[in-house]
Amino acid sequence: MSTQQPKISLSGAQKPFFFGVDVGGTNIKIGLVDDLGRTLAFDSVPTNEPAGPQQAVEQAARKCRELAASLDIAWSEIPRVGLGAPGTMCLKRGLLLEPPNLPHWSNFPIQQALAEAVEHPVSFINDANAAAFGEFWVGTGAQNDSLALLTLGTGVGGGFICDGRLIKGHNSFGSEAGHIIVDSRPDARLCVWGGGRGHLEAYASASAVAAIAKERLDAGAKSTLQSLLKHQDAEITAKQVYLAAKDGDAFALELIDETAIYLAIGITSTVHTVDPGLVVLGGAMNFGGPNCPVGKRFLHGIVNEFKQRTFPNVFAGTRLDFASLGGDAGYIGAAGIARQDFRREQ
Amino acid sequence: MSTQQPKISLSGAQKPFFFGVDVGGTNIKIGLVDDLGRTLAFDSVPTNEPAGPQQAVEQAARKCRELAASLDIAWSEIPRVGLGAPGTMCLKRGLLLEPPNLPHWSNFPIQQALAEAVEHPVSFINDANAAAFGEFWVGTGAQNDSLALLTLGTGVGGGFICDGRLIKGHNSFGSEAGHIIVDSRPDARLCVWGGGRGHLEAYASASAVAAIAKERLDAGAKSTLQSLLKHQDAEITAKQVYLAAKDGDAFALELIDETAIYLAIGITSTVHTVDPGLVVLGGAMNFGGPNCPVGKRFLHGIVNEFKQRTFPNVFAGTRLDFASLGGDAGYIGAAGIARQDFRREQ
Repeated sequence: MSTQQPKISLSGAQKPFFFGVDVGGTNIKIGLVDDLGRTLAFDSVPTNEPAGPQQAVEQAARKCRELAASLDIAWSEIPRVGLGAPGTMCLKRGLLLEPPNLPHWSNFPIQQALAEAVEHPVSFINDANAAAFGEFWVGTGAQNDSLALLTLGTGVGGGFICDGRLIKGHNSFGSEAGHIIVDSRPDARLCVWGGGRGHLEAYASASAVAAIAKERLDAGAKSTLQSLLKHQDAEITAKQVYLAAKDGDAFALELIDETAIYLAIGITSTVHTVDPGLVVLGGAMNFGGPNCPVGKRFLHGIVNEFKQRTFPNVFAGTRLDFASLGGDAGYIGAAGIARQDFRREQ
Repeated sequence: MSTQQPKISLSGAQKPFFFGVDVGGTNIKIGLVDDLGRTLAFDSVPTNEPAGPQQAVEQAARKCRELAASLDIAWSEIPRVGLGAPGTMCLKRGLLLEPPNLPHWSNFPIQQALAEAVEHPVSFINDANAAAFGEFWVGTGAQNDSLALLTLGTGVGGGFICDGRLIKGHNSFGSEAGHIIVDSRPDARLCVWGGGRGHLEAYASASAVAAIAKERLDAGAKSTLQSLLKHQDAEITAKQVYLAAKDGDAFALELIDETAIYLAIGITSTVHTVDPGLVVLGGAMNFGGPNCPVGKRFLHGIVNEFKQRTFPNVFAGTRLDFASLGGDAGYIGAAGIARQDFRREQ
């Protein structure tokens, strides 16, 4: 697995170094990052979710030691490790609670387990928070004091940073952009995690876009996706919606435009709450991103609706853009949080 | 004008002391507060808005000196003054921009003007942010690390504090609870300040409750308020809605229940954004507050709707309550922000 970040050589790197560990449902990404957020070394290990968290933590720790050894970096030169993992979690106790994507990892004290395995202090945060901190440190937000990241993937995650500090929350539920209410109607779509109706994630995640497309196609909507559905008997995905839109399918384009409107409602409430000056869209569902006409139309739709729902001076003082670190944001941000905690302790 | 805060004597007070100056449309409240947030002295001066901001700032500064002199406190013993004022504003430049309630005070450098008049450094914040900090320091949130205050008055203000820090925002538009989107329908009510449709303030401010009541009464709704409207040819106010509800008027009770639902939608988005663990309702429109059946029903309605729209663990970890400092919250909080800035500088 390659990293998009330019790697730098050890001779050009600035000490101290920090490991970032980004736990996903399939792989655990591990990067060694220098004091300026540049990746010195990167690798990954399989999550192997059903085998439980202890083996995964030990594998990750072993990989960290291997990467350090491969560069002849003494273990003592790495003062702290950052850990990002998907929720639900209790940050104060360093616990995973009941993470939907890691069903065999419930109630596991992951922070302490990793700290014991790496024999260093560990900073522990939510994976979307980690990605936000990565974009804030060396990505799209590198010139900003504050930033809100929304990650559009299977779900909608978030990470809000105000004056350099992540909003983690009293219940480890801060920055949960996916659960901002964007549809107040009594028949609004239900949150799949049991959080009630009208949450952004039920409208603007890849799963939601796929589900809404499927419902409308089943109800007879005209689209090139109909033939795909019939011929392949396949599930509709957000990527298929994107590909149809790229080919000019009106149904797919309309659905993407609608997704932009719900996102803009969520972004407006985010901006009127934390007013970050910069809102960044990350995650796999970017409809082609900044270099694709569909991605541009998607971003333009969000910007246009946001303009209708906020004040001229707030609109003028807020930039909306795509994330720039791709899949590296998580481990870089986890390392960045470790660095921030380390510096505060000095 | 009396203060609700217990005053303490100079002999029992803890140094250093801070002035809090709370600018309102009618009066400027001025309190001298000790290092534990206890009021040593309080008074007010008329805002006299049309006479412009310079005279008001000078009057306030003169009153500060009078209060200090009356207690034989040397001016040098007060290291800093806190100033809260209604927006719009630019906190970074210490400017009032175009405050709707202070139409003759546009583009006034109020922070510097007060600093020159009191010959001390001045900390400058939004009035609702100041009230939030007051409740956080010595009010309903005194035992908490974080807090979200929503002030229900002519408008809906907000102040969100995360781990002791106010969310002020890149555009001085952080914590603006009144502009969270709570109605996503295309025909949602318009923000009176030009911020688009569906903002909380258009549903849960005293002005909005009055306007909605009037619209429905004009359309023929059955209510005891109809006779009031006919006999007195008066404007309907939120207070009249409250008084009718207290007498059991079904129309008024239903409107208050609806207001609770919109507030709960806004509170849910607030909690899923900053996750403060404590949400406090302040401002004049409290429908009788915690000691009145209508106030209790109002709070219960909010809590019940919030429960439907969030997750069980977030609901369990979040308290909703009324504010406790009344009209003192603003100057106490302004003094508290001055104290926080002073301590950071030490």
